[in-house]
Amino acid sequence: MSVTVADVGEFGLIDRLHRLLAKEGVVASEVTLGIGDDAASFHPHPGYELLITCDCMVEGRHYLPDYITPFELGRRAMAMNISDIGAMGGEPLYAVASLGLRAAMRVDDVEEIYRGFMAELNPFGASVIGGNLTKSDQATFLDITLIGRIEAGTCISRSTAQPGDAILVTGYPGQSATGLRLLLQSGDTRALGDNPLVSAYTAGAHRAREGRALAKTGLVTAMIDTSDGFVGDLGHICQDSGVGAVLFQEALPMNDYLRQAASHFGIDPYELVLGDSDDYELIITCRPRHVEDIRAAVRTVSTVTVHKVGTLTDTGTGVTLVLPDGTRRNTSPHGWDHFAT
Amino acid sequence: MSVTVADVGEFGLIDRLHRLLAKEGVVASEVTLGIGDDAASFHPHPGYELLITCDCMVEGRHYLPDYITPFELGRRAMAMNISDIGAMGGEPLYAVASLGLRAAMRVDDVEEIYRGFMAELNPFGASVIGGNLTKSDQATFLDITLIGRIEAGTCISRSTAQPGDAILVTGYPGQSATGLRLLLQSGDTRALGDNPLVSAYTAGAHRAREGRALAKTGLVTAMIDTSDGFVGDLGHICQDSGVGAVLFQEALPMNDYLRQAASHFGIDPYELVLGDSDDYELIITCRPRHVEDIRAAVRTVSTVTVHKVGTLTDTGTGVTLVLPDGTRRNTSPHGWDHFAT
Repeated sequence: MSVTVADVGEFGLIDRLHRLLAKEGVVASEVTLGIGDDAASFHPHPGYELLITCDCMVEGRHYLPDYITPFELGRRAMAMNISDIGAMGGEPLYAVASLGLRAAMRVDDVEEIYRGFMAELNPFGASVIGGNLTKSDQATFLDITLIGRIEAGTCISRSTAQPGDAILVTGYPGQSATGLRLLLQSGDTRALGDNPLVSAYTAGAHRAREGRALAKTGLVTAMIDTSDGFVGDLGHICQDSGVGAVLFQEALPMNDYLRQAASHFGIDPYELVLGDSDDYELIITCRPRHVEDIRAAVRTVSTVTVHKVGTLTDTGTGVTLVLPDGTRRNTSPHGWDHFAT
Repeated sequence: MSVTVADVGEFGLIDRLHRLLAKEGVVASEVTLGIGDDAASFHPHPGYELLITCDCMVEGRHYLPDYITPFELGRRAMAMNISDIGAMGGEPLYAVASLGLRAAMRVDDVEEIYRGFMAELNPFGASVIGGNLTKSDQATFLDITLIGRIEAGTCISRSTAQPGDAILVTGYPGQSATGLRLLLQSGDTRALGDNPLVSAYTAGAHRAREGRALAKTGLVTAMIDTSDGFVGDLGHICQDSGVGAVLFQEALPMNDYLRQAASHFGIDPYELVLGDSDDYELIITCRPRHVEDIRAAVRTVSTVTVHKVGTLTDTGTGVTLVLPDGTRRNTSPHGWDHFAT
């Protein structure tokens, strides 16, 4: 029979996770106290600002255990935080992980969640340096706070875009949310195992390396990840920068997987691109003359395509979609609202 | 009818909390980006290490809404994190708060939770600079990560105590857990409103100022807060420092409130002192000749009593309680295990 969290107890579980992190994780010399004290401590790096972000996954709300392995869940929870640091132009350093777990959960599965964390953190030399474990009788949750750093004064906000800027986006937003939708409809994860949209959900990627390379150009006027959906997050840039946006439908990233899924669901494939995302692609704005410099910077670290999809305008027009025939449509500025029913 | 979280939505709620924090909270000049971007950013202070801690309160597990107001809940959740920073000798700087909320929760109550956060943070010039809001259909939870700072190299760990050290404790551990027990048994919060044990639970204090003053003496060999219970946390010092502990029952902090409650429950009053705590008192170890210096340092910031309760011994003996007649009793080294049923 499998050993459960209740069998080993809170302190037994902390010991096991501590050993696992020491064995398979990164130990940074700047960390003066790691897991096991009232607080962890570290030396910040001179010349850098620190970044801090926090994102949570709740069972039944953000994931369903039948459709994602504990390892994939750990990766996904960490990737969404790394994405937030990357969308500022920074690099991840230290994570604290707060887990609410059922007493009956298998210890092996908790360790797999942590292996997922490390799969995302290790390539950056980043590590889990603290956290909290608590019993949660109802839904399991994973709440991660991630500290990152960026050279002082080079942070890229979502509130500094300007009218006339080009709007760029990496990759194919909507793939991950579409993959989840396919999983939920099919109910058979194995039958869909090779579907690239499903992989986009279960092995969700981020663009933190691209974000970091872009920050170094000094040419990005605003940046945000697409976690709230393409139009949702572009809407955040518009609202916080006081600009409007015009998107050209023909220029939007579209591929055969999304087209096939849209056909399967009987909907417009662009709904999949513009709506719920669950991807961690980047929306980037820059002066029009810098678009090729942006693409060149991304190519130094990745093969992801950078699509130029529109232009920012003066305030007050929200996000407007221009169809191939010239028809203009307003889209909702708000993306994924966690309290919508 | 009251406005709910579902009525205003995630982004509406973020806007309201952002405005509340701007109006009633502290704005630190070191914070370069606050709430509202992918991540917050701040300038660390030269010459300091940063501390990071994380603690979570889950409804039904750590609190019951019928027995604590939203304001008290916010205070308590923040105080437990401030206590962890204080137990290292540090001072709190920045908090990120991740809340899992039911859609039907009143927005006024969420604001009251944030007012509780600020009631604890403002006196330190500390602030909430980020967080996450998510819908949680089952239990509400509050997960806080708190960043603090301490002069480089002066952090007080739980793993550096030495045999022969005196064991000190502030205040009266066990009051808060006893207050909760009274509340749960009575079921009538108003009838118990004036009981100091109940106040110890609903308006839980921390000893962060005392911890900070103690760190500056350079005389503390180890320190920890009593959040896992007196014996539980003394056990952490023993295990991590490789020492044993002898406690003298006659020297333990005891007062009439605890005696009366023990009589009411028909138990030994020292069970209340040594067991579950829910208080954030400090256990301090130091060389015996420094006990009065420790007391003097605490007096510079507070009127709390510092009790000398025992001595650390060579490894392997756990925590031993010596009764007035000289009888020795082993106590359990583990305190509050969150996965115990």
